[in-house]
Amino acid sequence: MSRVRVHNFSVSVDGFATGEGQSLDTPFGHAGARLHEWFFPTRTFQRMQGQADGSTGVDAAIAGTWDAGIGAEIMGRNKFGPQRGPWEDDEWKGWWGSNPPFHTPVFVLTHHPRPPVEMEGGTTFHFIDATPQEALRQAREAAGDLDVRIGGGPTTVREFLAADLVDHLHIAVVPIVLGRGERLWDGLEGLEQRFRIESVTTPSGVTHMTFTRP
Amino acid sequence: MSRVRVHNFSVSVDGFATGEGQSLDTPFGHAGARLHEWFFPTRTFQRMQGQADGSTGVDAAIAGTWDAGIGAEIMGRNKFGPQRGPWEDDEWKGWWGSNPPFHTPVFVLTHHPRPPVEMEGGTTFHFIDATPQEALRQAREAAGDLDVRIGGGPTTVREFLAADLVDHLHIAVVPIVLGRGERLWDGLEGLEQRFRIESVTTPSGVTHMTFTRP
Repeated sequence: MSRVRVHNFSVSVDGFATGEGQSLDTPFGHAGARLHEWFFPTRTFQRMQGQADGSTGVDAAIAGTWDAGIGAEIMGRNKFGPQRGPWEDDEWKGWWGSNPPFHTPVFVLTHHPRPPVEMEGGTTFHFIDATPQEALRQAREAAGDLDVRIGGGPTTVREFLAADLVDHLHIAVVPIVLGRGERLWDGLEGLEQRFRIESVTTPSGVTHMTFTRP
Repeated sequence: MSRVRVHNFSVSVDGFATGEGQSLDTPFGHAGARLHEWFFPTRTFQRMQGQADGSTGVDAAIAGTWDAGIGAEIMGRNKFGPQRGPWEDDEWKGWWGSNPPFHTPVFVLTHHPRPPVEMEGGTTFHFIDATPQEALRQAREAAGDLDVRIGGGPTTVREFLAADLVDHLHIAVVPIVLGRGERLWDGLEGLEQRFRIESVTTPSGVTHMTFTRP
């Protein structure tokens, strides 16, 4: 069976995965760029931005595992964009420009389905109103033998963890106290009992944690 | 000026420093021993228990810095014992037996002062109803040129951090999701801006973080 994976998911030391007040200019609200500063220099992120290369140290090695073997992504609507409620602007096609970095089908969870949007480079956004289980069934069908990535945001990752659907979870704990926003860990008491956990701190100050099936 | 230090203060990855439901049998509530398993094998803890020695690796090296140069401790009443409200049992002299591991004056913050209790080995418990600033003034007076340790629990550490009275903070982040209890980080948004932060993960799975003055 293909695996379900979460990669490069940053949380503050107080457990927030995004700040308060998401808007078009601030996808992570008052957190700004602080949760992802470790990620920006990496080859993975730099290539997403069209740069030829980036850093290749330990942060980059861990970040770089995010796409190999992935056949589909599932993301929450709040990762896709800042709109809430019924879609008022069908022209919005995500934060990622005309050629998003996914290059696979992407299933966007929303209570307001709309027609699929095909982008350059192999990414197609499908908008579905579905439980985690049903979304995963559709994503697996699209992914064939490949793995499915849960792309975030925090509510979506938390729901998939609560439903015990995640096989590999990579968290980057960032040494900031964000204070407010969306918490990752709420409702997940005892999560560690289902996983083997490894941690490593890198010179960027981040602690990478992997939760894998024992 | 003497420094104010916090040592060996464990929090779960979701930010709880103690669990729910403290009682005589469960000083850390439903957390049980899980927040401190990294600490138990260390020489520091083993010697507190009257053992001749314990582990001497990195966990132990960091844990062992807790007492050098300390002249007084300040602790919250909930660290001292499970009673709440007016004292009903003056016989309670803490969790630590007749010879507590502090060997200095210890100032217990409580809204219900009572006479000091002198223990073996140099520990005297003083019960004071005071702000963090006033408690620190008294502790500094008792400590002479030596440092003052803030011993916990989470509410006390948080109050001293909020008042910007802490110069050295050692946190051990334990990879468990405790889910409920007393949070350390609440109300401390932006704390990282006041400190230089270092992190290191040890084979026990714990991430030690030190917050020191830049």
